[in-house]
Amino acid sequence: MTYFDCDYMAGCHPSVLQRLNLTNMECTAGYGLDPYSERARRLIRDLCACPDAQVSFLVGGTQTNATAIDGLLLRHQGVIAADTAHINVHEAGAIEAAGHKVLSLPSEQGKVQSQVLENYLQQFYADDTWQHMVQPGMLYLSQPTELGTLYSLYELEHLSAICRRYHLSLYIDGARLSYALAAEQNDVSLADLARLTDAFYIGGTKTGLLFGEALVVPRPNTIPALFSLVKQHGALLAKGRLLGLQFETLLTDQLYLSIARKAVSLAQRLKNAFLRSGYTLFIDSPTNQQFIVLPNEVIEQLHHDLSFELWGSQGENESVVRFVTSWATEEKDIDALEQCLASLKTLQKK
Amino acid sequence: MTYFDCDYMAGCHPSVLQRLNLTNMECTAGYGLDPYSERARRLIRDLCACPDAQVSFLVGGTQTNATAIDGLLLRHQGVIAADTAHINVHEAGAIEAAGHKVLSLPSEQGKVQSQVLENYLQQFYADDTWQHMVQPGMLYLSQPTELGTLYSLYELEHLSAICRRYHLSLYIDGARLSYALAAEQNDVSLADLARLTDAFYIGGTKTGLLFGEALVVPRPNTIPALFSLVKQHGALLAKGRLLGLQFETLLTDQLYLSIARKAVSLAQRLKNAFLRSGYTLFIDSPTNQQFIVLPNEVIEQLHHDLSFELWGSQGENESVVRFVTSWATEEKDIDALEQCLASLKTLQKK
Amino acid sequence: MTYFDCDYMAGCHPSVLQRLNLTNMECTAGYGLDPYSERARRLIRDLCACPDAQVSFLVGGTQTNATAIDGLLLRHQGVIAADTAHINVHEAGAIEAAGHKVLSLPSEQGKVQSQVLENYLQQFYADDTWQHMVQPGMLYLSQPTELGTLYSLYELEHLSAICRRYHLSLYIDGARLSYALAAEQNDVSLADLARLTDAFYIGGTKTGLLFGEALVVPRPNTIPALFSLVKQHGALLAKGRLLGLQFETLLTDQLYLSIARKAVSLAQRLKNAFLRSGYTLFIDSPTNQQFIVLPNEVIEQLHHDLSFELWGSQGENESVVRFVTSWATEEKDIDALEQCLASLKTLQKK
Amino acid sequence: MTYFDCDYMAGCHPSVLQRLNLTNMECTAGYGLDPYSERARRLIRDLCACPDAQVSFLVGGTQTNATAIDGLLLRHQGVIAADTAHINVHEAGAIEAAGHKVLSLPSEQGKVQSQVLENYLQQFYADDTWQHMVQPGMLYLSQPTELGTLYSLYELEHLSAICRRYHLSLYIDGARLSYALAAEQNDVSLADLARLTDAFYIGGTKTGLLFGEALVVPRPNTIPALFSLVKQHGALLAKGRLLGLQFETLLTDQLYLSIARKAVSLAQRLKNAFLRSGYTLFIDSPTNQQFIVLPNEVIEQLHHDLSFELWGSQGENESVVRFVTSWATEEKDIDALEQCLASLKTLQKK
Repeated sequence: MTYFDCDYMAGCHPSVLQRLNLTNMECTAGYGLDPYSERARRLIRDLCACPDAQVSFLVGGTQTNATAIDGLLLRHQGVIAADTAHINVHEAGAIEAAGHKVLSLPSEQGKVQSQVLENYLQQFYADDTWQHMVQPGMLYLSQPTELGTLYSLYELEHLSAICRRYHLSLYIDGARLSYALAAEQNDVSLADLARLTDAFYIGGTKTGLLFGEALVVPRPNTIPALFSLVKQHGALLAKGRLLGLQFETLLTDQLYLSIARKAVSLAQRLKNAFLRSGYTLFIDSPTNQQFIVLPNEVIEQLHHDLSFELWGSQGENESVVRFVTSWATEEKDIDALEQCLASLKTLQKK
Repeated sequence: MTYFDCDYMAGCHPSVLQRLNLTNMECTAGYGLDPYSERARRLIRDLCACPDAQVSFLVGGTQTNATAIDGLLLRHQGVIAADTAHINVHEAGAIEAAGHKVLSLPSEQGKVQSQVLENYLQQFYADDTWQHMVQPGMLYLSQPTELGTLYSLYELEHLSAICRRYHLSLYIDGARLSYALAAEQNDVSLADLARLTDAFYIGGTKTGLLFGEALVVPRPNTIPALFSLVKQHGALLAKGRLLGLQFETLLTDQLYLSIARKAVSLAQRLKNAFLRSGYTLFIDSPTNQQFIVLPNEVIEQLHHDLSFELWGSQGENESVVRFVTSWATEEKDIDALEQCLASLKTLQKK
Repeated sequence: MTYFDCDYMAGCHPSVLQRLNLTNMECTAGYGLDPYSERARRLIRDLCACPDAQVSFLVGGTQTNATAIDGLLLRHQGVIAADTAHINVHEAGAIEAAGHKVLSLPSEQGKVQSQVLENYLQQFYADDTWQHMVQPGMLYLSQPTELGTLYSLYELEHLSAICRRYHLSLYIDGARLSYALAAEQNDVSLADLARLTDAFYIGGTKTGLLFGEALVVPRPNTIPALFSLVKQHGALLAKGRLLGLQFETLLTDQLYLSIARKAVSLAQRLKNAFLRSGYTLFIDSPTNQQFIVLPNEVIEQLHHDLSFELWGSQGENESVVRFVTSWATEEKDIDALEQCLASLKTLQKK
Repeated sequence: MTYFDCDYMAGCHPSVLQRLNLTNMECTAGYGLDPYSERARRLIRDLCACPDAQVSFLVGGTQTNATAIDGLLLRHQGVIAADTAHINVHEAGAIEAAGHKVLSLPSEQGKVQSQVLENYLQQFYADDTWQHMVQPGMLYLSQPTELGTLYSLYELEHLSAICRRYHLSLYIDGARLSYALAAEQNDVSLADLARLTDAFYIGGTKTGLLFGEALVVPRPNTIPALFSLVKQHGALLAKGRLLGLQFETLLTDQLYLSIARKAVSLAQRLKNAFLRSGYTLFIDSPTNQQFIVLPNEVIEQLHHDLSFELWGSQGENESVVRFVTSWATEEKDIDALEQCLASLKTLQKK
């Protein structure tokens, strides 16, 4: 069986594991107050060209989103997000559990359109009853989006400008940020994110770490008492150095980029294989997630040898499926997929 | 420097690391739906003599407490706990953040006394205004307590009976449960806990895992929709098998017991070293945490070679300090401590 | 100036005021434990043909919704509502502030369609990831809706059956329930609501009381510890008898029906006046709220003599406006409106 | 039966009722945007010598406390209060329901002692683990306290200075503030409160209104988006003018003071009656609540003719009882009490 279900099926990148092995018997302070975490913080500040940035390491994405959003919003505020956003769909209501409404906007290819945002904000404040409604306090984006698409620098600049005009914080969920940074069509750097947002996170879980997300707050104290808030959200790892040394490894010598570039390149090979076989894309993704429209019987056939996720039905006879590559995907996995597609054709010819 | 600060300074037990190395390249389902987690669950059910128990693996203690307590309480209820309880002091308000008051009771040696509990409950319901007050919905205990002390089986049976009489859930925080199970004076088994409580957790972080706590719900569905609640609390690990295989290792061939027995035995040696040197105990702990009263100048001296925590001041010239042993503590560490104490005496004689 | 802005601009119905005057100097127990509240409860149980119903009196609608919904849901659950629902739009996030997501469905004429509900539920549980999503725990409807429309008994029976099939509670916001009961096309009785729902409320604020809503829970203890929950939500009135005696007055000799019938009848006269003048309805409402599409210049003209609310713009030159009648509206107010419309025509002819 | 149970048993002061009668048929905007509310706001600003103060009218005390405290605290902060404080005991966990811990301090005669506060704060920040604990964000006091006692101006100045030094907001619950202002030994004016606090409220429910509390925020926008927060807490009254005109009446020509002076003077007469009869005070209260220690058999006797609350038992044979006077208490009520006490003595002589 070859696996394309998601980017967190295997353990961690061998370099990361090696570091864990080498340092296992050391004794350090807990809660991220160790030298590994400090070094990882410095690496991130350098990569972001943001020497003052406050960097915290948390275990997972949902808790990072919940903590950051909770810290950026005031009690009466909600967070604007695409209707397809992870926080709006797949976090079991973690944002609402902390008291905040997710104000969902219709999205295009997983992206919030600046015109849609601007219209929403104009209409909101034009409504006489706006003080009876949940006031937008921030904009949540993900880069890449849930559908693998990317915001261009031009789009981000535009969205960020709207946020400033309307006193919204801007936060970017970077669960798969490495894959965005590694995509050919990408023109947004970490330094751009540090310049344009109030907070964002660099995902580790989906880029070859056992676990871990690095929350970056470019202007310190934007989130008051962040350390305590992380603790309150149950997101403070006792053996915090595990996060620090994993990120230190990931960020040294651009390991995160080489991991992501390989995965993205394999994903593009995979996409082309489907296109060559005559199937259509649900969306044209430049990153490590690919969404293909397949006849249901093809899906059934492929499932004999390949493991991947159903994303949703598309009419009666077709469905959208998702194929994901990761640091652990190999050329031979795509070979296997191409062979499956080839044998399908043979089958159909008969 | 020899470290006695806490039981989570080093990485993980070598057997655990070895398992992580061996399985690293495997691909499994996420979120605890993998075979390692399933095997670990079965091991726990066996150890607890509770074949139906629902077992969930979470990353850390604060989030385990917050999730379980939130799931066991109704909106209008609070949780009774010792004034010294971790949830009342050191979790940055995680319980209140989920909407519940911690109803603290005075404790003796870190323990809730059954008479104090019973009096509180009697007076609560005798008060005409009880419906205007936060209604107690559960009792939170920790075994061992924050001060290293133990509830006897007799005490737990008694407390559990009071809980049943007053319709309280009983929950036990087992962050250091292995050290309780390994203590000589202990007479409470895992099966007793499963029989007497509505939920408890077996701590891994402090017994040689990189991280991880196993939440045991003896009667399934006591906490509705536990999986979703874990997700909502940001406590669902993507690569969930890491928890499963760590616990599988810890629970195989009683590794948890041998780890804890060694640590407890070293802790008792450490305690005796202080006693022989003429110092008094703040509390007589049978587990891996030791609390000693030391003159402040002695503390200063010891800090040259030993790392340990100040617990609080005791009058003007003395303080309580905490020494903790763990799976990573060695006989030579206690040797070093004994030498420090010996050289102190020589110093004083001069 | 003649006022059609809303149904809570004047004080209270003279009969209510008279009762307040007559009883002012009496001393009674607080918090609804007085004989007036008890009598009002009995009246409601009779009207609902539900002798066991639990009845609580709260001051306002938002707090009644927040308290009831909070009490009906478990932590991990959300509430399904029409996108236009009051709780989704105009309660400043009170539901989310208590930790619950509002799961909004597209509506037709302010109503949740049973087919839409069923499809949503089927798709929800067909999705493999449903445990990562907010689970629907209840359905919120309003009768009449925000747009003045009514659910028929057939529709309610159908929606209620779906709720039971999917283990959803059914709750009805009756802020303007009297106007539904008084509408000619209505075929849903209070007894039907008690039979079909898990909780609903009979609005007093908008039917001639100074304030007050009567929350009816047909099967007692459906909401655990309701009294304490009301207190926790800050919704327990100290001088609770004020609520009891207002409702006692409102429900005696069908005062609520005669108030509502008059208002509905004047609203229909008002609607016909607009229709006769050649304007179109935004929606054909059988209750006391009327939504008309008017040219913006007409609105400007009418605003000289009439006070009413803009509901939203409709293209460039027209807007939807809302006219509301209440217990305080008189025939002469409609006369005034008709005269305004007539003079508009004269104006246009010139 | 003569009633001394509490200060909210009767309706409202006749002048208030008269105003409600006179204005009943007027139509005004809702939600406090009416001229009565505006005039009441101006009166309060004048009385507080604070022309910029933001004034909001809410229905009840619990919701006023919950809204103000929620608005003054950040997510990670808790509120310091006396262990006997209303928010710590009798609000069913409303503060915790909004996510904040009540950090209770031991009190003396219902009052937080400045030395106790200072020690707590010093020790808090001296503790290395303070970031793992709930950080104090504000101090809650009540004037008069739950036990009827008063803070002197000297004490308030001192407490306020500590608050400023430690960056705590200072909030005062004035549910019975009129009775403090009317007490002979009082030296704290409304202007002092406006100068020394970040928010406080002037209670109406317990001083002759049907309901209503006036929240005063001396420096506007100290609580962000207060209007929306009030709505989110379900505390925004639709017919808001009812609050405005009640407060306008109460504050015109010092009605609140004359009401409170009479009640306080009757309470002192009541206290002296008990003292003359040889009973001891639980506490010497200068305001309208009196706490007396009585033998249980005396309580039983008195309960034949007088209605009052048991406050708690005091040993085996005695209890503390509370007698409360209000605007509705008359000289003849105290006469009745004196007669009861006299007949008790006669009884005992026999």
